[in-house]
Order: sequence, then structure tokens, then C-alpha cells
Amino acid sequence: MPGKTNGVGVQVEDAKICVVMVGLPARGKSYIAQIAQRYLQWLSIPAQTFNVGNYRRNDAPHPTADFFDFNNAEGERKRRAAAEAAVADMLKWFKTGGVVGILDATNSTKERRKWVHQVCEANGVEVLFVESKCDEEEVIMANVLDVKTTSPDYKGQDPEDAARDFRKRISQYEKVYKTIDGDGDESDYTYLKIMNIGKQVVINRIQDYLQSRIVYYLMNLHIRPRSVWLSRHGESLYNLDGRIGGDTMLSPRGQLYAKKLPELVRESVGDDRPLTVWTSTLKRTIATSRWLPQHHNQLQWKALDELDSGVCDGLTYQEIKDRYPEDFVARDEDKYNYRYPAGESYRDVVIRLEPIIMELERSEDILIVTHQAVLRCIYAYFMKKDQAKSPWMNVPLHTLIKLTPRAYGTEEIRYEANIPAVSTWRGKGSTAKHEAPTGDTM
Amino acid sequence: MPGKTNGVGVQVEDAKICVVMVGLPARGKSYIAQIAQRYLQWLSIPAQTFNVGNYRRNDAPHPTADFFDFNNAEGERKRRAAAEAAVADMLKWFKTGGVVGILDATNSTKERRKWVHQVCEANGVEVLFVESKCDEEEVIMANVLDVKTTSPDYKGQDPEDAARDFRKRISQYEKVYKTIDGDGDESDYTYLKIMNIGKQVVINRIQDYLQSRIVYYLMNLHIRPRSVWLSRHGESLYNLDGRIGGDTMLSPRGQLYAKKLPELVRESVGDDRPLTVWTSTLKRTIATSRWLPQHHNQLQWKALDELDSGVCDGLTYQEIKDRYPEDFVARDEDKYNYRYPAGESYRDVVIRLEPIIMELERSEDILIVTHQAVLRCIYAYFMKKDQAKSPWMNVPLHTLIKLTPRAYGTEEIRYEANIPAVSTWRGKGSTAKHEAPTGDTM
Repeated sequence: MPGKTNGVGVQVEDAKICVVMVGLPARGKSYIAQIAQRYLQWLSIPAQTFNVGNYRRNDAPHPTADFFDFNNAEGERKRRAAAEAAVADMLKWFKTGGVVGILDATNSTKERRKWVHQVCEANGVEVLFVESKCDEEEVIMANVLDVKTTSPDYKGQDPEDAARDFRKRISQYEKVYKTIDGDGDESDYTYLKIMNIGKQVVINRIQDYLQSRIVYYLMNLHIRPRSVWLSRHGESLYNLDGRIGGDTMLSPRGQLYAKKLPELVRESVGDDRPLTVWTSTLKRTIATSRWLPQHHNQLQWKALDELDSGVCDGLTYQEIKDRYPEDFVARDEDKYNYRYPAGESYRDVVIRLEPIIMELERSEDILIVTHQAVLRCIYAYFMKKDQAKSPWMNVPLHTLIKLTPRAYGTEEIRYEANIPAVSTWRGKGSTAKHEAPTGDTM
Repeated sequence: MPGKTNGVGVQVEDAKICVVMVGLPARGKSYIAQIAQRYLQWLSIPAQTFNVGNYRRNDAPHPTADFFDFNNAEGERKRRAAAEAAVADMLKWFKTGGVVGILDATNSTKERRKWVHQVCEANGVEVLFVESKCDEEEVIMANVLDVKTTSPDYKGQDPEDAARDFRKRISQYEKVYKTIDGDGDESDYTYLKIMNIGKQVVINRIQDYLQSRIVYYLMNLHIRPRSVWLSRHGESLYNLDGRIGGDTMLSPRGQLYAKKLPELVRESVGDDRPLTVWTSTLKRTIATSRWLPQHHNQLQWKALDELDSGVCDGLTYQEIKDRYPEDFVARDEDKYNYRYPAGESYRDVVIRLEPIIMELERSEDILIVTHQAVLRCIYAYFMKKDQAKSPWMNVPLHTLIKLTPRAYGTEEIRYEANIPAVSTWRGKGSTAKHEAPTGDTM
């Protein structure tokens, strides 16, 4: 039997991995779970989070801290039942093709971890424990504040009461919490231990490629506040003609956008925040960035070049339909997977963007000036957009997009230059040179 | 000032990093140093190893174990002088543009590490300690055996005497050796601690991108014995015409090679060793692999596709010279850096091969069926070939190459199918369709 690949160059074979979160409440476990799921899904790896709290809320929707007292037999029984239900659902999900299941819970005792490990092993699922250990009061406080305003456990309650109760809940867990014992009877486990948000990281017995991908990604995350700005190049000469690809210069209106961009950036970023500008290696993105202040470092990445349209490079959609009618139809049927002859698919673009995403996760403020398809892929990563839909998103020219990752999603603000430009959006089946976007934009 | 990149998408800024090896003798430090240097140089990052033993040998060419007794004041003085000379040379080298200097020595005491750290900091050099800690007798024995036959310290001596003396030397070091103290006064250091060849890894205070690249690479190394087999596709229809690029099928002789390949593989790999076959996504590599046994998993990687020759795709060298005379000359002048209009350079190919190399380092036996330029880049990585020369190497068609990484370099065996094929090698300035290779092959 030939080996399987998920099509993005990731050899997943028949891997089934359960990522088991470990740690006290308010240590960022749900954030890690959420962001790992988003990253894997973006890479076309089926990933799903199973949050034990959600199962427990069926039985106990608004528990007080006493519920989490480990001497409270009733609470203990319900929490155990919730964990069992989550794990059972996860095992069912693996049977339907799931690859990485993330068990989001405290899993704070050795007994609980041993149980999860045994159940998974018995079902042919590898276990990767991911522990977040943190004693920096500032980080914990920020998480407590976040929980009191967003957790369904405290819905409708006074925020101060909620924070007080949540603190008490944490101290209930502290009584029984044991960190993963890497020198003792847990030394055979595969685990990643993240101390104080990455200051120290311990990696134990990582066995295969997919585990190491997850570990490397999580190692690179940071939680310092930052934003990512995205812009397409200014309108190009090919845009005017409705031609795709190429390496043409900016149109007069595109040049106006380049001159206006520093103002938009100043408005959004501010004057003294250090910003690094990434462009592709193509003339139109470099020209779009040329008026940005000299103190912003600029880097060119080949990986940010536009989707390679192969034999169709330089053609209009009408010409593509005339010369390659079957390709034209095939692309509209599955735009994400369709690869231009001698060119690329959106899926291919995602593979080559993966190192860019990794570098973005490590970085602080970055402005990326790139191309329609590439921008769609980067946007889809941050905004968790569906692969079937992202290639159809409308990304207008002459617009600066600011994305700010937060604990529970990514915030977006748009700045329009108010400089007219043609539309480069195209609906399914259309060969129009400049079609007005319909329905969902992004 | 615009930011700097080394051209392979690695943002090195003004980083200067000293990788300080730490560990008892026979823990694979020199192997790690050597392989890290090779990887970085392949990525165009200036890297150099400074081996303190080489400096010490100027003063004490064949020391016995007594020399390494820490109560031996004369030995201690000489070893200290050697360390100082190595560090001084490294600092000089950083001033000439060096980026990663690797200090290969035991650095087994806290005092020594503190001194190196202070000297580097004072000179604006970041320090990354890399400790190899190992108590598996089997691994240590293998390293001891290796040293007794290869170390210049024991040149001309009886191997048994050498092994005995080397064991004694190790025990001298054991008396003073202190592992990096991550909980105590060394907790502020940036370090990577590799326990028992990667079973456990501790990463502390990694600060920037280049450090994390080095750490990720070293995490992925393993020392289980394995080989990598390389083959070009069989002769293609374009090869016959002397055309570059394209996606043509195999010539009749190319098809003969595809039928013969399973025999060459059986001869070299053996019957029951599990082997995974990687091809590009182009027809000629897939067709070359089609007769390989079904029990060898096959994977297609876009990253293994041939160097994209952009506007020159499908042309002969004579046609390129006629249509793009300036490009033709420019490419010959700096073939590694030359990028075809709308296509790629060798440097670009190396960037997109980096994840392939990382995956290769993690894997066991792999057979790669790919293309001339891609094969040159992979070969250059394993055989440490110069970037200026590697694009000119002759890689004959219809030949299977077996590469086996060893502690002090990579072994090579070639298996020729004895099926005639055209030459696709081309000398500087030539436009011949099929030129006979001259001088160095690979």
C-alpha cells in the first residue's frame, strides 16, 4: 500500500495522537489547545478539541469552588464522568478519521494522567502530554481576569465575585496538582512541559514527525501583545488588464496607494512602534513598500510570491477558459486543491507559507505586503477560515488590514486608502475581468 | 537601514552566536558540532567550529590521561591556554562576518562556562550552551571505539592501550564535571540539554529565531544507522532534446531504467529493510518509481520538483542564449544565486528543501527519486559541497547513489544501471545539448 500524505507534505501515516493538556486553571491551556487546533487544521490535519469543562457543564452548569474540592465526592464523580464522556467522544472521532485530538482539562493528578494514557494506548492512540506550568503572578492574573468575564461557568455573575471564586477553585486544584514527574514513574511518557510561557521547555521522548511538528509550533508561540498588518500590492498594470500572475509594475493608482500607505501605517501602528516589513520578491510588492519610513526594516521573501499559475501566467480568465477549458472548470470545482499545470494550488501555497507562519508566531509587529492568494492563505490561518471558502474571499486592493491575536480569537480592523482600484475578485464560473464581489467578503 | 537576510529567508539580522558544547568526552560533542556547522553552511549562514583539542595539541600532541587530571597544574595551564586561544580566534572570526561560532570542548565546569559566557557577552556575542549528557554504556562505548581509532591524540598507538587511556581520561573529567544547573546559578543561561541522544531535551531561554533554528535541528538528529538513496528520474523525452524543465514522460531508455531500479535497490538495500520512496510531483520521477515493490511506501513532495526555470522552461541552452543572452551569461557567472525570470535559483531550491532535510534527519531509510538540480542540493548537504561548485556537479542519469552518514562524514556508494543515457551536464559557457562532463564529477 502506498504511503499517505495529507497533501501538504506532512507525512501523517496512520498517526492518531491525543494531546493531553496538563496544568492548573488559568495557565493558558485552552489558548494553547485552540491555537494548536487552528494550526493543524490550516495544514489540513484533522484536529479537534475536547473540552472536559463543556461536558461537566451539562451536569453542573455554574459550580462554585466547593464543587472542585477533591474531598467532595459528588463533585469528583461528576468531573470524572465528564472526562470519561470527553474521552469516549474523542475515541469515536478518531474512528472517523481524526488525527490529533486535544483533551482540554487540568489532568492535574498522576492517577488521571495514567488513566488517559491507558485508555488511549488500548485504542492505538499515541499520547502527547502538554503541560503549562507558570508561577508568574502577572500572567495568572491576566488569565483570571479573562476567565471571569468570558467563562460560561460565571455567566451573569458579578465579576469580582467570579474572580474570587475562581481563585478559590485554583487553590482547590493546587492541593492535588502534581507536575509531570520526568525523573520518576512518568519518565516514559511523551511530553512537552512549558514553564513560564516558554522560558524553559522540556521535551521528553518525542517519537515521530507529527509530534515534533506540534512541539516545535508550541515552542515558538509567545503571548507578548503584537499585531500583523496585511496589504496587497497597489493596483498593477496586469490588474488593469485582468491578467493573472506576471511581474508588472504598479498602475498610476497603484503608485498613489504606495504613497498613501505610510500614512495608513502611521495611523494604525503609531510612530515609534518598531515594525518590520515583509514583501515578496516581485516588483509590485517592493514598489508598494518603497515610501515606508526607512526605520522600518524590510525583508523580501520568495515564499510570499503570488500563487504560481504555471502555463496560465499572464492570461486573462477568458483566455484561460478558451485555451484550457477543462482546467477552468476543474479549478472552480475545487479551487483549494486545483494545481495549475506547471504551477501551484492553494494547498501548495500553504506548505510554502508554513515557515512564514512559524516566523510570524515568533515575531512582534510585522507588515506583510503580498498578493491576493497568499494573503488569503495567511488570513485564513489567523481567522480560522474554511479551506473550501478561503480561495473565494474578496481581498480588496488599496486596503490595510490589521490583525491582533487575542486569547479567544483574532481581532480585525481595516483601513481603506480610498483610492479607486479595479476589482480582482471573480465568482465561480465567471470570466469577467473586473467583477463586483458578492456575498461574504472575508 | 533595511534589514538583512542571508538570502534564504533566514532573518539573521546582526546575530552573532557562540554555540558552546558541554559534556564529558565520548558524548558525541564533536559530531554535533560538525553536523550543525554543515547544516548552517548549507543554509548560507557563516559557521565555524573551534576545536580546543586542536589548539591544545600544539602544546601537548599526545597527552596521557594524567595530563587531564585537574590537580595537574601544568596540564590545567595548557588546557586553559588552549581554550583562550580558541576563543580569541573565534572572536576575531566574528569580526570578519562570522555568525555562528561553535566552541568544541568539554566545558565541563561551571567556572569555565562562566568565563566563556563573560568573554562572549563582553564582545556582543550571544551564548547558546549545548550539553550532551549520556549514561547509556552502549553509546559511550561506540564513541570510545571511534576515538581510539580516529583521534590524533592516539596516533600510532596500540588501540587497546588507547581505549584504556581514554577511559581514564573520561574518569578524570567525571571528577569535576557539573551538568548545567538549570535551577540554580546557571538558570539564566540560554541552553539546550540533550539527554541520552534526544530521549529528553531541555530548552532554556531561547531568545531569537536563529537560536531556535539551531535547537530544532539538533532536536531532530538521531544516530540510528540508516542510509539515504538518491536517483534522478530515468532519461526523459526533454533530456533527449536537450530541453530543460517541462513535465515529459520517460524515453524508452528511461523506462528501462525504471524497470531496472528495483534490482539496484534490492542489491543495495536488501529485501526486508523497510524503505520509503519520495518522488517529486512530476511525471518522470513518478514513472521512474512505478516498478518498485509495493511494500515500499511512496510519497510525492512538491518540494522535490525540479528547479523552476521560469521563462526558460522547455528551452534548449542554445535557445536560452539566443533569446536571453544576458541571462545566459549571468547564470554562468554565479549559477548558485542566479534566478531565472519568474523562476528559481539554486539558493531558492535550498530554502524549499530545508523541511525535506529536516524530515530526512528524523527518518530512517529513504530513497529519493528527483531531478538534477534538487539532487545536487541534497548531495551538497550530505557531502558538504561548496555552493559555488555544487551547481556544476555532474550527476549522471541511470545511477543509484547510496549515502550513509557516519560520525566523521558521509560514505558514498554508486550503483550503475549500465543503461545508456544522454549527458545533461553542461560546462560553463557551453550551449551543447549533450556535453561530456570534465574534471570533478561530484
